[in-house]
Parts: sequence; structure tokens; C-alpha cells
Amino acid sequence: MEFTINEIAKLLNGKIEGDGSQKIFNINKIQEGKPGDISFLSNPKYENYLYSTGSTAVIVSEGFKPIKPISTTLIRVEDPYAGFTEMLHFAKKLQTRPQSGIEEPSFMHESSSMGKDGFRGAFSYIGKNCKIGNNVKIHPQVYIGDEVIIGDNCTFFTGVKVISGTQIGKNCEFHPGVVIGSDGFGFAPQQDGTYKNIPQMGNVIIEDDVSIGANSTVDCATMGSTIIRKGVKIDNLVQIAHNVVIGENSVIASQTGVSGSSEIGKNCVLAGKAGIIGHIKIADHTTIGANTGISKTIKKEGQTILGYIGMDIKEFLKSYSIFKKLPQLEDKIKVLEKKQ
Amino acid sequence: MEFTINEIAKLLNGKIEGDGSQKIFNINKIQEGKPGDISFLSNPKYENYLYSTGSTAVIVSEGFKPIKPISTTLIRVEDPYAGFTEMLHFAKKLQTRPQSGIEEPSFMHESSSMGKDGFRGAFSYIGKNCKIGNNVKIHPQVYIGDEVIIGDNCTFFTGVKVISGTQIGKNCEFHPGVVIGSDGFGFAPQQDGTYKNIPQMGNVIIEDDVSIGANSTVDCATMGSTIIRKGVKIDNLVQIAHNVVIGENSVIASQTGVSGSSEIGKNCVLAGKAGIIGHIKIADHTTIGANTGISKTIKKEGQTILGYIGMDIKEFLKSYSIFKKLPQLEDKIKVLEKKQ
Amino acid sequence: MEFTINEIAKLLNGKIEGDGSQKIFNINKIQEGKPGDISFLSNPKYENYLYSTGSTAVIVSEGFKPIKPISTTLIRVEDPYAGFTEMLHFAKKLQTRPQSGIEEPSFMHESSSMGKDGFRGAFSYIGKNCKIGNNVKIHPQVYIGDEVIIGDNCTFFTGVKVISGTQIGKNCEFHPGVVIGSDGFGFAPQQDGTYKNIPQMGNVIIEDDVSIGANSTVDCATMGSTIIRKGVKIDNLVQIAHNVVIGENSVIASQTGVSGSSEIGKNCVLAGKAGIIGHIKIADHTTIGANTGISKTIKKEGQTILGYIGMDIKEFLKSYSIFKKLPQLEDKIKVLEKKQ
Repeated sequence: MEFTINEIAKLLNGKIEGDGSQKIFNINKIQEGKPGDISFLSNPKYENYLYSTGSTAVIVSEGFKPIKPISTTLIRVEDPYAGFTEMLHFAKKLQTRPQSGIEEPSFMHESSSMGKDGFRGAFSYIGKNCKIGNNVKIHPQVYIGDEVIIGDNCTFFTGVKVISGTQIGKNCEFHPGVVIGSDGFGFAPQQDGTYKNIPQMGNVIIEDDVSIGANSTVDCATMGSTIIRKGVKIDNLVQIAHNVVIGENSVIASQTGVSGSSEIGKNCVLAGKAGIIGHIKIADHTTIGANTGISKTIKKEGQTILGYIGMDIKEFLKSYSIFKKLPQLEDKIKVLEKKQ
Repeated sequence: MEFTINEIAKLLNGKIEGDGSQKIFNINKIQEGKPGDISFLSNPKYENYLYSTGSTAVIVSEGFKPIKPISTTLIRVEDPYAGFTEMLHFAKKLQTRPQSGIEEPSFMHESSSMGKDGFRGAFSYIGKNCKIGNNVKIHPQVYIGDEVIIGDNCTFFTGVKVISGTQIGKNCEFHPGVVIGSDGFGFAPQQDGTYKNIPQMGNVIIEDDVSIGANSTVDCATMGSTIIRKGVKIDNLVQIAHNVVIGENSVIASQTGVSGSSEIGKNCVLAGKAGIIGHIKIADHTTIGANTGISKTIKKEGQTILGYIGMDIKEFLKSYSIFKKLPQLEDKIKVLEKKQ
Repeated sequence: MEFTINEIAKLLNGKIEGDGSQKIFNINKIQEGKPGDISFLSNPKYENYLYSTGSTAVIVSEGFKPIKPISTTLIRVEDPYAGFTEMLHFAKKLQTRPQSGIEEPSFMHESSSMGKDGFRGAFSYIGKNCKIGNNVKIHPQVYIGDEVIIGDNCTFFTGVKVISGTQIGKNCEFHPGVVIGSDGFGFAPQQDGTYKNIPQMGNVIIEDDVSIGANSTVDCATMGSTIIRKGVKIDNLVQIAHNVVIGENSVIASQTGVSGSSEIGKNCVLAGKAGIIGHIKIADHTTIGANTGISKTIKKEGQTILGYIGMDIKEFLKSYSIFKKLPQLEDKIKVLEKKQ
């Protein structure tokens, strides 16, 4: 990127204190700023860095009053963090190669259609009867099967695989290597000890504003649909099994797994490596700690759960603190027994 | 799909009660059935839904006696669940685009051969000296290395990678993004703290009727073979390390990992996120619970194991129930100590 | 492979005892050796196998004195294990198809360049302004984004995805399906319960001699760089989040996850399924056991940590051994209470 401070201040509707003609090439943390960088100050904990930062410009709040001399140029805005984020979005847009058109060789069946401003990278594949909206970016080596429906403004990064029958809303992002709509893990045990495949007839429905991280997998339903609701954000290497429903605005961190037919409520947070057993429900606004196993339905909203078999986080931490001193506890019991 | 009830009854060798000329478009659960759907009733628990279902047809057993009036058409068969599954297989076959021939551009080295009724999707790659059987479906963007042997009726979904030297039996399925035959994790520590790569010379052997889920990885052996025996079913995001052997008809759920040189017996079940240390053996018919760590050989067959470091499931649950009330236990000890 | 014993002895600078003209086709363990195989004997525990092995040749140490008659041919070298590894490297090199040149169709933007002795497989993609060193092997279906810098002697196995802006040193290996530089998991919670995407502006820097296993993911930094230092070895299905730093010569086993902004020291070992919370530091030479959760900074070097919430391994195992007999402990307390 290359901007003047004047240009950034204009974008953010901010006021400049200092030399607005200087050029900005990079975005950096205030504590690591170098000449040519722009930073922001929102959390007062970091105020000290403002007086020594190497950054050429720093975004601060309108009402901020410095207590020492400042050598950097200030841009004053209403909300420095929001302003900084806005600038990030702007810079990201410029950084990202404006992709449209078709790179060859690529493959799209004649029965499928894409809206305007789309991009299809080299070695991408689109099967039969797909309906793809406007401004959809299909990066190189992406696979879209048959009868897939995709809303406007979606991005499919390289190597994403979307299996036949999937339905996707608007403004979704699929990071490299994501698999959507693979067969659910369904096998009927036979009397001779073998397993017979149960055909997976359903699909995956993904609503608007969903993001799914690199190499995560979302299986199709056995019948009906696996559903990822509006605003859900999923990290890398996450497993979503067949017939699962993830509620609106829930966030799922890396390496978590949700087993078949379970339903996660709205606005839940699942930390890394959590594991949810099949056929249960998790109430809205539940927070599940890292590496926590959930083996039964959670009905009460708003709890924070932790543990090998999840329990209330405070109770778990209390029990675990005693677990750590079990040897002393055992000794005490021995002493008591001897005294009798 | 689009069938008449008459056509389905003929397929299942069943008897119709009601109007067999009606059309069926979808398969659905009896409790969620809508006009145009077909459902089944096997478990008596669900009998009540039969009297209110919206499904146009329901498959029931020959001897079933309704206790209320029924508005849906019945198809009577010997085993409703088996009949339903048979219909699913039939419908899946129709749903799946009959794939044969070659989509271009695709790549197959001249020294390799494929049997009849095969399919090679666009951007698929087949290296040197591969021998591929009949009715093998290689979807778009699949990679098959050199000297790979593949039996009849295998399906490689989009993005599967099969590294050189792999041998695969008949009737296997590899879901999107699976990697077979990647280098084992072998490094020799050097005196200066660095690690030297140990060349991985072996391969992977996969027997008949194996299924491996999306984005799972199976490493090749250091020497000899990593072996997945007949009938094994593996879920998504599972790791099988070098020189592992998985016994016949064992089932491995999502995000489980089996470390180097360990052997899993026949007819075992490994639930999600289980972890098996290297160089041990697990007896036949062992069930390993979710998130369970196994750190030593299990010799006795038929056990069910659970726990951070796995133990008998009943004993673990007993201990864990006391873990939950450790604070009270500690209090009791304090009281006892004071009383002395 | 096909060599005479004479040829192998020459390669290893070893002395032959027996018939050096025999042919060797395979490398095998001494206990599983068959005619045509070569094995080695380094660990005295395995000496007994030497007298019964079916291997045609065995590499032994210069000073080794057999205590029984031997029917196999010996190659005497200074260090049998080092000699064996050297032979493995030699054989691997021969086994690996000498890849250079360009398979078509493949895609490289005209603004990018590759050094000499490179290979670009079919359906591989290289974006704009990439600088790629000598002897770099880019296998089929690999994706390299824009502005990527790659040092000499790197190998990208099939399906690897390297996102724009990544910088890679020399002698690195990326196994099938690895994703480098995907967006970090960064979302700002909004007052209405939704999350707003925080643009990820940084990149990934990978130093020399790094190996990353199949389907692992390394996210780019929010700002600045995610850094994998010299000599790091990472196994399959590992997650490295945004702004993480992995220190020199650290080894990370399968299915481990390191959360955002954490720093792992030098020469650490993270066993399988370990989980490291965000924003902490792990001291040099720390060993973290399988399935261990680390929730706070580890300052003291050289510790071995184990547990659901990690603690000193000896203390954890002591506590866990008492956890197993908690029911008896509870009974003892009941007895004590009754006696009072």
C-alpha cells in the first residue's frame, strides 16, 4: 500500500495534527511501529507507546489529550479502533488483486450460470445446473459440483470443494481446502461384523455471512440438510457432521468437532478442540472451553462449560485444583486412619 | 427423484395398501413428512407419527396392524428398514450423475491403464505405470501418483491425493481432500539439536471395502506398509501414521489419531478425537470412547475404555463423578482433622 | 531399487564379508528380512535376528563380533545406523522420479520466475511476481499465489496451497494438502451479536529446513508475520494460528493446535493433539505431552508437561493414579466419618 496521511484522514473523516503529506506504506502495532507505518491507540494501556513509537502516523480518539510531547502525526477520529478497522478493510481491498474474468483452462458446464463481476481461476471446475450470483470469486483449483446455488459476493479460495446439491447464501467466505457436502459417516452394522454404507441423500445449507476456515469439513445430511445459519464463523480443521445445525452468529474455533444431528444454539462460542457428541442440543449463548467434551444436552442459556466431560467452569477449576494436590489428600487420609 | 409408489413397491417386492399411482419426489423422516415424500416405520416408538404424517407413502412391515385410521399409502415389506435402505441405494444411484468417459483437460501418463466404465474428471492427474481396474471413478482434481494399483469399483472424490506406490483393493471410497501415502513423520535427532529427515521408503496398502472421510491423512510406512484392512470405515480429519495397521471392520470417528507403528485389532470402534500412542496394540472388539488417550497395549478383547488416560469406562465414570465433588471431599477431610 | 551388495558397500565405504555380487531389491527390518533384502544391525537387542534373518545382506559395525555362524553377507561400516540412513537417502533419490521441466497444462503468470532444474506439474498455478529459486519441485495441482518468495531446493507436494505474500527459505518440504497463509481467525464482536471480519494484512515467513505435514494449516498474521523458524518439523493436520512464532528445531506432532499470537521456544517437542492457548510463551526445550492443554506461559526451560490443564508430568501421573482410586478414597472418608 502507499497513501499520504491526508488521504487516510479523508477516508476516515478525521482531523490531522502534524504533517499530512507524509507517505504511509504499512500498518503496524503501535509498539512495533517503524517510519512509514500507521498505527492506532484505543486501549489506554498502550498510551505510553505513543510517545516513543516509530510510526509515522497514529489514529487516536477525538478527545485524546497527550501528557507528553509527540513526534508522530495524529489522525483524530470518533472511534480509533473502528477507524483503524475501516482502514484495514480499505487497504485489504487494494491489496487483493481485483479479480474478474476467466483464467484458462477452467471448466464450467454449459447448463450453469454466473452473475456479473465474477472470477473463475485456472483449473477451477463448475458442474451442471449451478446458479451462481454476482461478484462471486472462484479461485484456482476450486470444485463446485452439480446443482449448487451460490448467492452474491461469495469468495471460494483455492482448493475449496463444494459437493453437489449445496446451497450457499450471500457474503460467505470459504478458505483454502474447505470441503462442503461430503458424505456423512453413516454405516449400518451387519450381523457378520461388516458395515453397510447408508446412502447420504441430503445436502448442506449455508446462510449469509458465513466464514469457514482452511481444511474444515462440513458433511451433507443423511436426509434433509446440515445447516450453518447466518453469521456463523468457523476456524480451520473443524468437523461438522451430518444433520448438524449451527445457530446464528455462533463461533467455532480450530479443531473442534460437532457430531451427527446435534444442534448448537445462537451466539455460542466453542473454543479450540471442543468435542460435541451426537444427537444433543446446546442452548443459546453457551461458551464451551478449549478441549471440552460435551456428552449431553445443555438447556440453560449463557453457561460457560469446561472439562474432560464438561461442567460449570468454576466448579471444574475448583475440582481440578484439588486434583493437583490429590497426593497430599491421600496422605492426610492415611494419617487420619493411623490415628484411629 | 420421481417415482410412482407402484414403481417403488415393485423394486422392494412389497404390497401396496392405498393409491399406488401417486408420485414420490423425496425421502424424508416420518415425523417431518410432506406430500410427495416417502418414509418408513420400523421402530414402534415412531408409530404415532404414522397416523399424522404428511408423507404420501410409508414403508411398514408385513405384519404391522394400525390402531387408528391412516390417510397415507402403505408399502408392506418383510423388513421396513432394510427395504428403506435398499430404496436409498437405488435413489442415490439415480441421483448420482452416471459418470464415465474423460473430461478435458485431464492428465494420464501413457504407461498407465484404466479398465472399462471408468471416469476421469477435468484436471485429474494419473502418473506413470498405474494399473486401474474397471468402473473406477476419478473425480475432477484428483491426483494419483506413479505405480499405483487400484481395484474395481473404487471412487475418488474431488481433490483426493494418492501418492506413488499405494495399493488399493476393490469397492473403496475416498472422500474429498483425503491424502493417502504422504511421508511418515520420521526425523533423527542430531547432536546439534537439528533433525535429519529419515527417508520414508514404504507404501500404503488399502484392502477391499474401505471408506476414508474428507481431509483425512494416511502416511506411508518408513519401510514395509501402512495397512488398512478390509471393511475399515474412517471418518473425516483422521490421522493414520506410518506403519500403522487397522484391523478388519474397525470404525474410526472424526479427528482421531493413531500414532506410528500401532496396530488396531478387528471390529474395534474408536470414537471421535481418540488418540493412540505409537508402537502399541489394541485387541479385537475394543471400544475406545471420545477424546480418550491410549498409552499402552490393550490385550483383553471386548473392553470399553474411556478417559484422559484410558481406563475401564465404568471405573472412569465412577472416578469422574467423585472428581466433580472433590471440594466437598476436601472439606470432609478438614472436618475430620479438626475433630481430632 | 536394484543394486549389488558391492555397489552398496562402495557407496557406504564399507567392507564386505561374503558374496558381494548378490542383488538387493528391497530394504527391510532385520526381523522381517527376505532374500533380496538388505537390513542393518545397530541395537544389540536385535543381534539374535542376525543369525536367522532371511535378508541377503546386513550392515553391521566395524567391530561387531558374531557369536554364532552367519549365512547372510555382512557390510561393515563405522556407524551402521548412519550408513543405513545414507543408503535410504540414496535409494529414495533413485525411487523418486527425477522431476524437472513443465507438464501441461500448467499456469505461471508472466511476471513470475523460476530458477534452474525446477519442475512444474500439470494443473499447478503460480500467480504474479513470484520469485522461485533453483531446484524447486512444484507437483501437480499446487497453488502458489502472488508475490510469493521461495528459496532453493524446496518441494511442494500435490495439492499444497501457498497464499499470496508468503516467504519461504531453502530446503523446505510441504506435504500434500498443506495450506500456508490462509486468513487468521479474526472477527470483532458487534453490539447486535454479529461479528465483523478483521482484515488479515500480514503474511507467513518460513525459514530454511522446515517440513510441514499433510493437510496442516498455517494462518497469515493479522499484521506482521506468522513465523516458522529454521529446522521446525510439523506433522499432519496441525493448526498454526495467526501471529504465532515457532522456535528453531521445534517438533510438532499430529493434530496439535497453537492459538493466535503464542510463541513456542527453540527445541521444543509438542506431542500429538496438544493445544496451546493464545498470547502465551513456551520456554525453550519444553516437552508437552499428548493431548495436553497449555493455558499459561511456561517460563522455566526444559520441563515436561502433561495433563488436561498441563502440569509437571510426574505430578500429573501421581494425581491421576489417585484419581483412578477415588472411589476407594471416598469409602475411606466415609468409614472415618462413621467412626467418629
